[in-house]
Amino acid sequence: MHPPLRFYFDVISPYAYLGFHLIYPLAERHHRDVELVPILFARLLDANGTKGPAEIPSKRAYVFKDAYRTARVANIPFGPPPAHPFNPLLALRIAALPELAGDRRRVVELLFRAVWGGDGSGVTDAAVVQQLLADRGFPAGEWIRAATEPANKARVRDQTEAALARGVFGVPTVDVDGELFWGIDSFAHIERRLLGDDPINDDLLARWVGLPAHAVRRGFGSSQ
Amino acid sequence: MHPPLRFYFDVISPYAYLGFHLIYPLAERHHRDVELVPILFARLLDANGTKGPAEIPSKRAYVFKDAYRTARVANIPFGPPPAHPFNPLLALRIAALPELAGDRRRVVELLFRAVWGGDGSGVTDAAVVQQLLADRGFPAGEWIRAATEPANKARVRDQTEAALARGVFGVPTVDVDGELFWGIDSFAHIERRLLGDDPINDDLLARWVGLPAHAVRRGFGSSQ
Repeated sequence: MHPPLRFYFDVISPYAYLGFHLIYPLAERHHRDVELVPILFARLLDANGTKGPAEIPSKRAYVFKDAYRTARVANIPFGPPPAHPFNPLLALRIAALPELAGDRRRVVELLFRAVWGGDGSGVTDAAVVQQLLADRGFPAGEWIRAATEPANKARVRDQTEAALARGVFGVPTVDVDGELFWGIDSFAHIERRLLGDDPINDDLLARWVGLPAHAVRRGFGSSQ
Repeated sequence: MHPPLRFYFDVISPYAYLGFHLIYPLAERHHRDVELVPILFARLLDANGTKGPAEIPSKRAYVFKDAYRTARVANIPFGPPPAHPFNPLLALRIAALPELAGDRRRVVELLFRAVWGGDGSGVTDAAVVQQLLADRGFPAGEWIRAATEPANKARVRDQTEAALARGVFGVPTVDVDGELFWGIDSFAHIERRLLGDDPINDDLLARWVGLPAHAVRRGFGSSQ
């Protein structure tokens, strides 16, 4: 049995939402499971000293249109959450709970739908999230309490740091037997890799990584 | 006759190179011309206070692999340039010359190939670029001189500022009758738009643009 595809996500990302819906059929076509790994996207941005798409005004509007178009083509319900950006930590901590076990996919689907499904409640208000989970018969109060215990807060933090150390710089990222694929636009490449048809050329890659830099922009954030 | 598709590019971007090759067949299928608009990507990054993909080490290696995979699928020759990043201004200024007229596509193809074609000379050395153009029978010396005249330097600068003002934040970007599409992954969306099948929902878009922000990262570049 092959290892599962590890799916790194943050509920704040519309592309992670779309990727969550697209990764399961892809994994099933190749007889793989999916391992869901919630991480904090903002920490990746901080560590790399860069901005997320929603933090650049012209890109922010574009990204929504692009995600909406993709959602329509893929027939995935999609609309804006009640607020954005928002604090995703409660949702990520719930998603990371060991006690979710076999329910993790269903719970993450509920959380994602509450953000990007088009008419959701968001996932920042603990009482609202508790009701959402309780309505589906989950031990919601228990999970909400467990989610904010220090050991579980540390779990999301540690998963995020481990992802960073592995080279994850954005969400969604899929780890396919050690090879990282970023963004839903890479899913066709994942499919080819799983078919043994990834053309990657290690010699050219080594040349690229070792290239001299003949120009570097002046101080990051300089006005010119 | 419909207006041309405006293709904003910088030779520094591997995705702009791939997009240059992919936009022509797309445009031809829809009986459109392509208008090539060279702009300085570094200025877009500076204006938005963000980083390019090649400026984040983990993303830098990834982007090359992703572009290489796409190039292989699309059967476009692809490999690393002699140095990267490099100063693209000479190439952009040549590409912007009014006197290129009907030769612009061929000249831009030559410049792009010298960067990303896999065994090119790069485009930073004026003597090398002059030889490259002269070998194809172009008035190379004249163009190199014209490229660095103040009026033509201003042309690339003005095109870049106009693109920024239009909301362009990356390359390649294609302006389709006033609607901007970013990145080669958007080309399928361009195709649907040209077929009159763009699902974009203006009400949802307005809701997204007007959303409250319930969390904002602390100072950009803060360590935590």
